[in-house]
Parts: sequence; structure tokens; C-alpha cells
Amino acid sequence: MQNLDKLHRKLGYVFQQPELLERALTHRSYGARNNERMEFLGDAILGYLISTELYRQFPEATEGELSRLRASLVKGETLASIATELALGDYLNLGSGELKSGGHRRRSILADAFEAVIGAVYLDSGIDSASALVQAFFRERIGGLDPRTLKKDPKTRLQEHLQARGNQLPDYQVIATEGKAHEQRFRVACQITELAEPVIGEGTSRRKAEQAAAEKMLQTLTDRDNG
Amino acid sequence: MQNLDKLHRKLGYVFQQPELLERALTHRSYGARNNERMEFLGDAILGYLISTELYRQFPEATEGELSRLRASLVKGETLASIATELALGDYLNLGSGELKSGGHRRRSILADAFEAVIGAVYLDSGIDSASALVQAFFRERIGGLDPRTLKKDPKTRLQEHLQARGNQLPDYQVIATEGKAHEQRFRVACQITELAEPVIGEGTSRRKAEQAAAEKMLQTLTDRDNG
Repeated sequence: MQNLDKLHRKLGYVFQQPELLERALTHRSYGARNNERMEFLGDAILGYLISTELYRQFPEATEGELSRLRASLVKGETLASIATELALGDYLNLGSGELKSGGHRRRSILADAFEAVIGAVYLDSGIDSASALVQAFFRERIGGLDPRTLKKDPKTRLQEHLQARGNQLPDYQVIATEGKAHEQRFRVACQITELAEPVIGEGTSRRKAEQAAAEKMLQTLTDRDNG
Repeated sequence: MQNLDKLHRKLGYVFQQPELLERALTHRSYGARNNERMEFLGDAILGYLISTELYRQFPEATEGELSRLRASLVKGETLASIATELALGDYLNLGSGELKSGGHRRRSILADAFEAVIGAVYLDSGIDSASALVQAFFRERIGGLDPRTLKKDPKTRLQEHLQARGNQLPDYQVIATEGKAHEQRFRVACQITELAEPVIGEGTSRRKAEQAAAEKMLQTLTDRDNG
């Protein structure tokens, strides 16, 4: 584990209780005293800070657009990129198995550690410090969000994604409906020719379930392309 | 719509900008100026406040236990119960269709309105006021949480739920695996004899996907029993 001074500088924050940072950088493979509880905390703090910021910055956005903007910011891939900027991988405490299999480069471990660092800053000195940290790393990302992309619904974006690659359009099938009128839940399978298995979306209307399925399919395709 | 004074007293909070409260009580069926954005905000604020409170009050709980505790507190049924305590239904602005079909008693509309009220308090005077409101309505509920119940994982609870009703045990089947080693996603179908359709759970291991499916099945059964 490297000296933490450099990490403090990159974070723009110096811990009063460095043991909190140490804990945030400790993966569960290392032992019982690990960062999982801090990750739970950091995840909720990040969701709150990003949500309030988006609410202010996009006064014309609908609830659905705000949700999609938030999802694009707090997804694992974004968090792992920030963790990589911070070189968090160099500081991780990992068990021997994870060390050998390259755990310090694993995207999910990096993303979780960054969330845990947010939780640790909150525990060290409160929500304002956590907010400053999140602002520092998300300001440009929020500024770079393209409202035009986000105004497009997932079905439209999936269609465009597939057409741009010369692929066939997706097929949507309602596979289940549950509940009484006014409280119904729909389950829709979205199938594309490139993947053997459909993905399933749920919602309170057929349209919402299709959109949820399209969103998941887009995520599946993005994960695969990045994988 | 009733005079808001009584609601102010029940909330223990008086709005400086009553138009924010009015907006929080306006369902989308009423018009374009509705509470959906505030609900987005309130949902994230509630998640943050409940998460930090649980982190403090349950120092021995694992991340999984904290997540389950939180889910039990912020689920629609709990929020609808609080909205009912507040008699929010008496104050809702609803479109004529929703009015006729009893929208002021619909649990999902009530739950959403309570989240929107949390968002409105935050917008009116900041996170400390929102925190006081959430504390007031969740203190007893958090105090009443039984760690023993929560230490049980979803598969165990589903099994006990079914056995207590003399029903057959659930069947779990892996229906898909995606992704490369170390980044794999599993999808598991959980089927019980009482429901025609299985529910699907996902996770980074077979065990996690089974637990996720069991959790969803418990939720489906609870929703049905309350429905």
C-alpha cells in the first residue's frame, strides 16, 4: 500500500481520521474489517448528491429523464473510471486470491472502493465534505451530459444503436401480467438476434415494461462492448 | 382540497413557500405541473437519510442486512402507511379520471406524494428540515426493526413464508449466465406452485441471483396479500 499523501492530494481532501480511508480501501477479500458497509453508505450519499444536483441543473427535465441522467452517472463503469483517475487500485487492500487474479484492476472492486471513499469522507467530516468531493469529480461529467440523447427514450436509443450497426430491430413480447387493475405489473421480454437470451423489463404498463427492457438491453450491450 | 394548516401540524413543519407543498400534492393526472420531479428528489433524499441512520444505529449489521433494513423502510407500502397517517389523500390534486376511480386512496399515489413532500420540505428549507421530518416518521419504525428477522436471508424467509402456509418449497433454476469470468451475471428463475409465472433474480453469483429472486418473490407475495 502506497503512502496516502498522494491520494489525499488527488482527492482534494485530507482525512482527519486516516483509518477511515484505509478501511474504505479494504476489499472484503482482505478480512472482516472491510469497506462493504462504507460502500452502502457512499452509494446512498452519492445518489442523494447527484439527484439534488441534477434537479437543480435540469429544471425542464422530467422525472424519467432525471432518472436516466442519474443512472448514467452512478453506474459502475463511471465510478470505476473515477477510481482509475484516482489510481485507487494502487492503494487497495486485497486478499491473496484477489491480488493474484488482478483484483486491483477489476472494475467492480474499483467502483465499490470509490463509493466507500465517499462514505468515509462523510464519516470523517460530514455531508458538505462529501458534497465537495462529488462535485469535484462529477462537475464536468454533469456538464457534459447531452439533454438531446437523454430526451430519447430507451426503445428509440436501442433501435438507433442496432440500426447504426446494421442489425435487425428488437422484438418485444409481453410474457406476464400480474396484479389487479390499477396495480398491474407487466413483464416484457426484449430479444435481439445478436444475443441468445432475451432480457426482461418490468413496469406498471406495457410501454414502461418495454422501455425498461430496452434500457436493460442497452446496458447489456454496453457492458459487453466494454467487457 | 382542505386547508393546509392541519397538514402543517401533522407534518410538524410549516412551509415558507406553501406552493411547494401544493405541488407535492399534485398528481400527474392533474396536469403538467405535478409532483413527479419532487418525488424523484424525495426518493433520493429519503434513501440517504435512512441509510445514514441505519449505518449509525446498526453498527454490527452487514451491508446486505443494511440493504434489507432500508428496503423494508422505504418500500411503497410503508410510505403509503405514513401518507395515510398524514391523511395526504384528503389533500391530493387529482385529474377527474383518478378522482372517480378512487385515486386518493391508491397506495402508489399516496406513497409517491409522501416522497414528494419530503422533496418539497428539502426545497423549502434544506436537508436538516427534511431530516427532521424523516426522523419524526421513521424513528419508531427503525426502533421496531427486528435484527433477527433481518439476519435471515431472503431464501430462508421465503421458505419459512411458504411453509407457514403449508405450501410447497420454491424451485430455483439458472436460466442465463452472461459475461466473462469475474464479471459474470447469473439470472435465476424462482417458481412457486401458487403463481403461474416465475420471478427472475440477477446477481454476480448463482447464490446472489437466487437470493435476489427469493426477495422479489417475497415482495410479489406481500404485494398480492396487501393488494
